Amino acid sequence: MSDALATDVYELAMMAGYYEHRHTGLATFELLTRHLPPGRSLLIAAGLEQALDYLERLSFDRADIEYVRSLPMFAGISPSFFEEILPRFRFSGEVWAIEEGTPVFPQEPILRVTAPLPEAQLVETALLAIVSYQTSVASKAIRVVESADGRSVIDYGARRAHGIDSALHAARAAYLAGCDATSYTDAGRRFGIPVSGTMAHSWVMSFADELEAFQKFSSIYGDRAVLLVDTYDTAAAVDRLITSGLKPAAVRLDSGDVVHLSRIVRHRLDGGGLRRTQIVVSGDLDEYKIADIVAAGAPVDAFGVGAAIATSSDAPSLGTLYKLVEVERGGQTVGVMKLSPDKRTLPGRKQVWRRYKGDTADSDFVMLADEPGPEEAVPLLQRVMVDGRRQQPSRSLGELRLSCREAVDRMPIPVRGVRDGARYPIRFSDALMARSRAGNRPAGTGTLQSV
Amino acid sequence: MSDALATDVYELAMMAGYYEHRHTGLATFELLTRHLPPGRSLLIAAGLEQALDYLERLSFDRADIEYVRSLPMFAGISPSFFEEILPRFRFSGEVWAIEEGTPVFPQEPILRVTAPLPEAQLVETALLAIVSYQTSVASKAIRVVESADGRSVIDYGARRAHGIDSALHAARAAYLAGCDATSYTDAGRRFGIPVSGTMAHSWVMSFADELEAFQKFSSIYGDRAVLLVDTYDTAAAVDRLITSGLKPAAVRLDSGDVVHLSRIVRHRLDGGGLRRTQIVVSGDLDEYKIADIVAAGAPVDAFGVGAAIATSSDAPSLGTLYKLVEVERGGQTVGVMKLSPDKRTLPGRKQVWRRYKGDTADSDFVMLADEPGPEEAVPLLQRVMVDGRRQQPSRSLGELRLSCREAVDRMPIPVRGVRDGARYPIRFSDALMARSRAGNRPAGTGTLQSV
Repeated sequence: MSDALATDVYELAMMAGYYEHRHTGLATFELLTRHLPPGRSLLIAAGLEQALDYLERLSFDRADIEYVRSLPMFAGISPSFFEEILPRFRFSGEVWAIEEGTPVFPQEPILRVTAPLPEAQLVETALLAIVSYQTSVASKAIRVVESADGRSVIDYGARRAHGIDSALHAARAAYLAGCDATSYTDAGRRFGIPVSGTMAHSWVMSFADELEAFQKFSSIYGDRAVLLVDTYDTAAAVDRLITSGLKPAAVRLDSGDVVHLSRIVRHRLDGGGLRRTQIVVSGDLDEYKIADIVAAGAPVDAFGVGAAIATSSDAPSLGTLYKLVEVERGGQTVGVMKLSPDKRTLPGRKQVWRRYKGDTADSDFVMLADEPGPEEAVPLLQRVMVDGRRQQPSRSLGELRLSCREAVDRMPIPVRGVRDGARYPIRFSDALMARSRAGNRPAGTGTLQSV
Repeated sequence: MSDALATDVYELAMMAGYYEHRHTGLATFELLTRHLPPGRSLLIAAGLEQALDYLERLSFDRADIEYVRSLPMFAGISPSFFEEILPRFRFSGEVWAIEEGTPVFPQEPILRVTAPLPEAQLVETALLAIVSYQTSVASKAIRVVESADGRSVIDYGARRAHGIDSALHAARAAYLAGCDATSYTDAGRRFGIPVSGTMAHSWVMSFADELEAFQKFSSIYGDRAVLLVDTYDTAAAVDRLITSGLKPAAVRLDSGDVVHLSRIVRHRLDGGGLRRTQIVVSGDLDEYKIADIVAAGAPVDAFGVGAAIATSSDAPSLGTLYKLVEVERGGQTVGVMKLSPDKRTLPGRKQVWRRYKGDTADSDFVMLADEPGPEEAVPLLQRVMVDGRRQQPSRSLGELRLSCREAVDRMPIPVRGVRDGARYPIRFSDALMARSRAGNRPAGTGTLQSV
């Protein structure tokens, strides 16, 4: 089965309706967020690669078409829609996007799609699901990575993700945003992410004796072994493994007061000559708990983080929009906006410019796409797809990860704060605001304020 | 590519280790939650169907095996693991499960897997991801459905779900728990869920005039059309559609004070002779907002709910466990438990009994699997898989949905409360508690208290 039905049925209903009325001129939609979730001061764009994959492979197979045609709501649609348009359908549009790993802010289009209206409409649901999810994960992961202050962060989120496909993309977005590895094997295989694993309590419990469990694991994995020491009594477990002469790469703590326990464990490891054995901590961690552990000076070398990253636990949805901003009708291209209370949008195709003072970003400018940008500013939206095909080969995930690190390091330090991050200035051009005030429906519901 | 690598790499490392040490006797793992998320008073089990699908199709193809073998951590594993064991691998275990749609509580195993230890270990990650996600969605959806108090609830969550695969399973779990339809086309096709769609703001904005947009949509979809009336000015839009003679099935409100607006709209529709035109409300709804709308007596016929259900927004992860409770070693089957602080587990295979007083459930009993149950009680865990194959054809999703409704209706009314739901009594048998106190490691860390 194809991905063509990975869409809300209203997209198909509108798509069919546009064809019925020959309302198929070019339309431009922009994908953006309206607000930052509580606690966040920046987002990290992610998921573009999978969004472009989806657009490139989009086509309807016979079973897709038969299902749609079977729905009573489509009874009034012309046969040509099912017999000519859908079988030949492919996405032929142009896509501009902000590179994955780039810090982005509300009201900034992350993705801009220009295509015949029915095509641009159909892809709304999947683009939102794909881009929003990875963006939410990367935006959470960068906070966790920052809070770890140079210590390693490993994605342990697969079991907490919203299904196994979600686990795969969580691992990708987490690595993009600076995690060092993932526990999820399939993500290692598909995306080349380093995989990292320890042992579970079940390994320990399956043997009659904890030390036997450590020895049997170490006999295979040697100095790569990471031993889980909290199944029964952490300090006693560490003492026994030292006495027995094991030299694990690391020990893992998954419960209890890890600041206290990590000090005890470090002290005993050092005393036992295992200065090179590291301490990995896991168990319901997030950026706040990690910041506290780091601030306490606990001797922790790496953090395994699960639900917080893989579900973006305190903001599992970004409320992302995909909004029509421009459409051809009657031979003219017009900017459009909606005026719904608290949900107004800004008309016209946009570009986002990031201005630097020296090495540090100073403010962003949301402008109409055809306006010249400010001095010392670089445009963030790049043309990545023309006529439904990628313009250049994708950069590797490793390269994107490095670019992400550099781009975050160029943001003002207060904006990168895990707690009470400062607000980064976003400005809107006069031309954009003028067009917004004019609106496409001067319905007398007031003017749009600069955000 | 197969799903065999949909697992944490430590499962593969432990699996390989168990084979290396011929530690392959039968093991039993139980999947359960430890706590209810804040605000919840019950959970709805879901995802079993996809869990069994995963177990039945589990096998390693050549590419899977080559990838695993390429990982440096597996350098010490015998060639036979890659050349004999993995190519022939299939899941041969027995699975007991609580039927999908059944109310469940913390400490109650939802799923119990008995299989050779390496097999039972390998499947941990995927079973957790699959079952936890659908269970979290169904557990949220039942609250939304209860809060709607008989009004229709439609899943609009696809764009908010954590990717398009997640959207599919969100729609399934939402329907299981009583939603009436989904907006997500692929879920309609794959699971036979009724699909329901309206129109987006883009349809309205793409035409020069709002009324023209309504007319063009209605000319195709007739009295099935649901018109979105809040793009510019809700009351004006309703007036114009009445005057123009359109007779939509419903109008949708997606913003503003919907209690107030729905009254205005209802009044105008009734005055205009459109008494049969319904009012659908959407826009960041959850069970609390819906309860307020219903309590205010707003004339709303249906609710479209997105992120709240599809991401289980206030509890996007259930912290579900998959814990070893019994293992064969040295020819004996022994119950095992861990003693980690706040993370103790209960040893031995269990059964959950639900006792009824008349038509209403009175309390649950978690007991050892071989104990006789209490009088008037029914066992919730049923054997669904033997030797890795389903025991009977799956019930249809529609049947499971009806059973879910009946099972929820048989829970005490206070436990079903959306706000301040009462705690349902869960009791543990004396034999289970005695075994727990004995423990597999009497490490002097105190006794386990009845929950």
